[in-house]
Amino acid sequence: MLKVAVVGASGYTGLELLRLLARHPEVEIVAVTSREYVGKPLTSVFPALAQIVAIDFTAPDPESIASQADFIFTALPHKAAMGVIPAFMQAGCQVVDLSADFRFQDQNIYEQWYQPHSAPELLSQAVYGLPELYREAIRGARLVGNPGCYPISVILGLAPLLKADLLDPETIIADCKSGVSGAGRGVALASLFCEVNEGFRAYKVAEHRHTPEIEQELSRVAGYAVRVTFTPHLVPMSRGILATLYGHWHHPVTESELYQLYRDFYQGHPFIRLCRPGSLPNTAFVKGTNFCDLGLRVDSRTGRVIAVSAIDNLTRGASGQAVHNMNLMQGWPETLGLEVVPLVP
Amino acid sequence: MLKVAVVGASGYTGLELLRLLARHPEVEIVAVTSREYVGKPLTSVFPALAQIVAIDFTAPDPESIASQADFIFTALPHKAAMGVIPAFMQAGCQVVDLSADFRFQDQNIYEQWYQPHSAPELLSQAVYGLPELYREAIRGARLVGNPGCYPISVILGLAPLLKADLLDPETIIADCKSGVSGAGRGVALASLFCEVNEGFRAYKVAEHRHTPEIEQELSRVAGYAVRVTFTPHLVPMSRGILATLYGHWHHPVTESELYQLYRDFYQGHPFIRLCRPGSLPNTAFVKGTNFCDLGLRVDSRTGRVIAVSAIDNLTRGASGQAVHNMNLMQGWPETLGLEVVPLVP
Amino acid sequence: MLKVAVVGASGYTGLELLRLLARHPEVEIVAVTSREYVGKPLTSVFPALAQIVAIDFTAPDPESIASQADFIFTALPHKAAMGVIPAFMQAGCQVVDLSADFRFQDQNIYEQWYQPHSAPELLSQAVYGLPELYREAIRGARLVGNPGCYPISVILGLAPLLKADLLDPETIIADCKSGVSGAGRGVALASLFCEVNEGFRAYKVAEHRHTPEIEQELSRVAGYAVRVTFTPHLVPMSRGILATLYGHWHHPVTESELYQLYRDFYQGHPFIRLCRPGSLPNTAFVKGTNFCDLGLRVDSRTGRVIAVSAIDNLTRGASGQAVHNMNLMQGWPETLGLEVVPLVP
Amino acid sequence: MLKVAVVGASGYTGLELLRLLARHPEVEIVAVTSREYVGKPLTSVFPALAQIVAIDFTAPDPESIASQADFIFTALPHKAAMGVIPAFMQAGCQVVDLSADFRFQDQNIYEQWYQPHSAPELLSQAVYGLPELYREAIRGARLVGNPGCYPISVILGLAPLLKADLLDPETIIADCKSGVSGAGRGVALASLFCEVNEGFRAYKVAEHRHTPEIEQELSRVAGYAVRVTFTPHLVPMSRGILATLYGHWHHPVTESELYQLYRDFYQGHPFIRLCRPGSLPNTAFVKGTNFCDLGLRVDSRTGRVIAVSAIDNLTRGASGQAVHNMNLMQGWPETLGLEVVPLVP
Repeated sequence: MLKVAVVGASGYTGLELLRLLARHPEVEIVAVTSREYVGKPLTSVFPALAQIVAIDFTAPDPESIASQADFIFTALPHKAAMGVIPAFMQAGCQVVDLSADFRFQDQNIYEQWYQPHSAPELLSQAVYGLPELYREAIRGARLVGNPGCYPISVILGLAPLLKADLLDPETIIADCKSGVSGAGRGVALASLFCEVNEGFRAYKVAEHRHTPEIEQELSRVAGYAVRVTFTPHLVPMSRGILATLYGHWHHPVTESELYQLYRDFYQGHPFIRLCRPGSLPNTAFVKGTNFCDLGLRVDSRTGRVIAVSAIDNLTRGASGQAVHNMNLMQGWPETLGLEVVPLVP
Repeated sequence: MLKVAVVGASGYTGLELLRLLARHPEVEIVAVTSREYVGKPLTSVFPALAQIVAIDFTAPDPESIASQADFIFTALPHKAAMGVIPAFMQAGCQVVDLSADFRFQDQNIYEQWYQPHSAPELLSQAVYGLPELYREAIRGARLVGNPGCYPISVILGLAPLLKADLLDPETIIADCKSGVSGAGRGVALASLFCEVNEGFRAYKVAEHRHTPEIEQELSRVAGYAVRVTFTPHLVPMSRGILATLYGHWHHPVTESELYQLYRDFYQGHPFIRLCRPGSLPNTAFVKGTNFCDLGLRVDSRTGRVIAVSAIDNLTRGASGQAVHNMNLMQGWPETLGLEVVPLVP
Repeated sequence: MLKVAVVGASGYTGLELLRLLARHPEVEIVAVTSREYVGKPLTSVFPALAQIVAIDFTAPDPESIASQADFIFTALPHKAAMGVIPAFMQAGCQVVDLSADFRFQDQNIYEQWYQPHSAPELLSQAVYGLPELYREAIRGARLVGNPGCYPISVILGLAPLLKADLLDPETIIADCKSGVSGAGRGVALASLFCEVNEGFRAYKVAEHRHTPEIEQELSRVAGYAVRVTFTPHLVPMSRGILATLYGHWHHPVTESELYQLYRDFYQGHPFIRLCRPGSLPNTAFVKGTNFCDLGLRVDSRTGRVIAVSAIDNLTRGASGQAVHNMNLMQGWPETLGLEVVPLVP
Repeated sequence: MLKVAVVGASGYTGLELLRLLARHPEVEIVAVTSREYVGKPLTSVFPALAQIVAIDFTAPDPESIASQADFIFTALPHKAAMGVIPAFMQAGCQVVDLSADFRFQDQNIYEQWYQPHSAPELLSQAVYGLPELYREAIRGARLVGNPGCYPISVILGLAPLLKADLLDPETIIADCKSGVSGAGRGVALASLFCEVNEGFRAYKVAEHRHTPEIEQELSRVAGYAVRVTFTPHLVPMSRGILATLYGHWHHPVTESELYQLYRDFYQGHPFIRLCRPGSLPNTAFVKGTNFCDLGLRVDSRTGRVIAVSAIDNLTRGASGQAVHNMNLMQGWPETLGLEVVPLVP
């Protein structure tokens, strides 16, 4: 059994990691950390885990954790993650980091959108943890930068089109909609039930920090610089991201050509599901799972391709993806511990 | 007191009309019709109206209704509306029709997206009921085609930009999100609570029948043919539409120039509210009202303008708009009976 | 125009007061206070009020406010309210207090469930602001203790039964369910969307501080001491309280006898609505209004009467009730400014 | 691998069975039936199951199904179930029936609350499928009447108290609240999103057909006739039942005595979780699982015990319970295939 620790386990991505790791057949949870809840039983904070995970929160002390665990999930805020990860690496642990700190190849871009990087020497060995693009590299990685939730939904939705050079790269728009858990478990006015319920809004339009991450990866797939307009919205529901992705085609294509293109691109990737032609994804259909559902439309009147992707932002968009990366890093079957059936309704 | 009838009063737009008309100071509700509930008290179907409106449903018989009422709201499905409206017109009534039947100037376009038109002779006298564009014409109209909910959100969001010729007309995308009441009160599997709750999805992508209506009006404003890609989505909430509207600029503009443009365009229109720069609309902030809130952003990295509009699909998107049109047709103050404060939270 | 101030206007009951006062025909809002937002425009905190109320927040300084306003609504937390109300009273203002500080006749009971009372000399002149029981006293009051949200739902539901001595007073249970706005706008983990959404729970069972308030009023109505078991629950919705009220009968009664009893008891009270026999209240049907809907059942198998009441916790349960009390204190028609139609759906 | 069929697989309990059976290590799904969808792929109706269960709907023909399957789950409406179950029994299949048809020991009671029974000869061999009460009998059963969702929540919450004779049996009240999936996937006005959302109501007060089922089982546990007042309510959420259960004590007890009583009673039952003293159940914490969470309070002021139970109505309240029963009938570990972690948030 692999000994794993979840560093920063009191938030929603931490909780989601515990949900998946608790039933993972090859894993033993040896430490869960939280500054706020040190010494408290995990189940006093998350009663849902009673009779499932019996462990107390400990302090996020890297040495102590590294002495117990061989594999570390860091579910900390940006900046805090890069503060502790070097110690884990030095101690010989493998790390999947759920923050943005190790997602960027170019330190400058990270620093332009986030803050000064305190462990830039690790950037070159970090692998961007999206298996559909980098499966082999992840298999050999010791440090994986787990992708952002929105970027996953956008990159998986557009990669085949860009790889095939079907779109005018100046015309790409990602209109994304996320459930509220994407904002985390931090106590903020804007996350109160009554502030969110029965309302819908856009936020951080054209300035969200997932933009450069999306562009980095789409550009790598395309082979040339891709710029996107990225617009996030908040949906009054707990889980799920739907991305509606637009681009103008170079030449007319049919929907069935597109479906074939996607089928080929994602061949052998167990967590991609293409909708039946004529139907489209619904975030409800991936709830609690690592699936990314994809649907395709052409608007021949205007010459646009519209790809729609749906993920669960906490599973595929964070913790399920992280477990998927662990599976690859350990040489295990990709789907191990992730064979969860969507909870519908 | 103006004697009004609501023909087709058992759906959500009918109910919303009754909510507003019940407190309108110049109006008396003399008839409410419903095939299904003939003879039943209105409050047996809508207990919320107990002690507010005391009337029984009658059959939708045009002659009988026209003999009691001078002003008719038809809240019937498409096709049914044009079946009864000629009789109301002949009887000398004024009519605001909430269906699509009298929104189109070009009979061909209507017939291409809907069905054969049974009263084409009335199309030329029908006025498109969007006061921000056609206030004077509505004042003189006897028949108003009340706009569709999505078109209102899109047209109000884009009109100033198109009037000022700021956008490349080939680049316009309307990504719209609607609450569930937009699907009406018809009993359908897809409208069940458990099918909608905690899910988000797109539907009728690039084929929704509001597309030609949007294009008709944007083209009239622009003075040349405008085509849009229109993508509707379903939000798990009862009321509200948010439209996120994209276009590539001809030349760079600043947000403050845009705000000035919109301020000028909508000067004197009481139901338009521009957000404070830096903030954006939320459908929650217009709930139950006739307001259309507008926010503006430029994405200078990609050369795009992003306009965001929020309305209540049942009020501004249907019944409030219809009352607004009645006010104009009667020569009353525009806001009469519509001075409702948003219900927050 | 009566000059009114809302002291503590940044919470949900403050916002609800502003919604109602903004359209009240006899009222001018001259001051809104908030420690947190001093100097900020009201609409920067509540964008929903844009173009409706134009005023800036000021500090909650009693002298300054009393110099501008003749009528004060205090929408402050318990304890803070009694800190400022004496100054308002001394300055000659009339006050409706939405906290618990002036609801109790017996200082001991208040102090046992809350804290030491800092203005006990005012308790005797404060009137419990439930017009269906104390209309005349409210008319003559200068200080009204506006009832708690749960107590309103319970007292209105049980008063006729207790007045008529129909129930065994040892058998009364109030099982109440409230929307989330009842917890206020304070930033707390338990009020986050993701903590509340898709869950249902009881809280403060048999220890909630509304218990002694309920018992005070039921005992006054009954003429003897009444004890209740009161169980509050949290419903994943923004507004509304449903109270399911149980008592064992002394002697068998029929539902139609009960309906007659309630009809007589509430005769002439405009905000009470009895459901049609066979139907029951739904919080959705009173949303945004001052109505209390009541339904009645007998369980003849077990000898119990079950009364069900529904209110909007922010309107009838707080701010609408407060405006109602103001209307009475001013000698105005009870329903002035409160003729709002429920927002359905 | 046990060959199982789900007869009536197009509703929510059918879907929930498939969710669990798809990952059950000892089971193969050989048939799913639906009158409405005969010949259609399961995933065309439930896209969430794509890449998980590959099967087409067939007609609910007992002979054909019995020739393929050894174990049958009937997830049909009452009456339809008893129409097909005799054929399955005759063919030698084991059956868990999710309808009410085989829950009653006394045919008269069934017929009084439901309809004439068409297979009364099977009633005596049917076992009531609540393992905490009848584990051994279920192990030997060929036909199990799977309990109703509300009865499970009430019986598990009260059984220890009644077994210990702690309550006055004339004082028991079950105030229950259910998510909307309890109403099934049938297309009905009352189940529409906009009719349910943001509302809370009671229904079928003192007349719901789960009443006699609750009384049958509580009486068996107690050893004497128990009558309850049972009040169901509808919560605007998809899943979950919370039961708030009241009874007057014979003699004072403490909460810690009660906890000890429950601990002893449920010793060795893996799906019962007692809340930590001081905390109470939340339906969110059991979502998607077979757990029943229990919390206890005494109201010493009034002499009442209040037990609160929470289940997922589709899992513990129906399909998870059915799988649990199958496990017992097969001699497998009780928790096989049911080790699902609650989906929070």
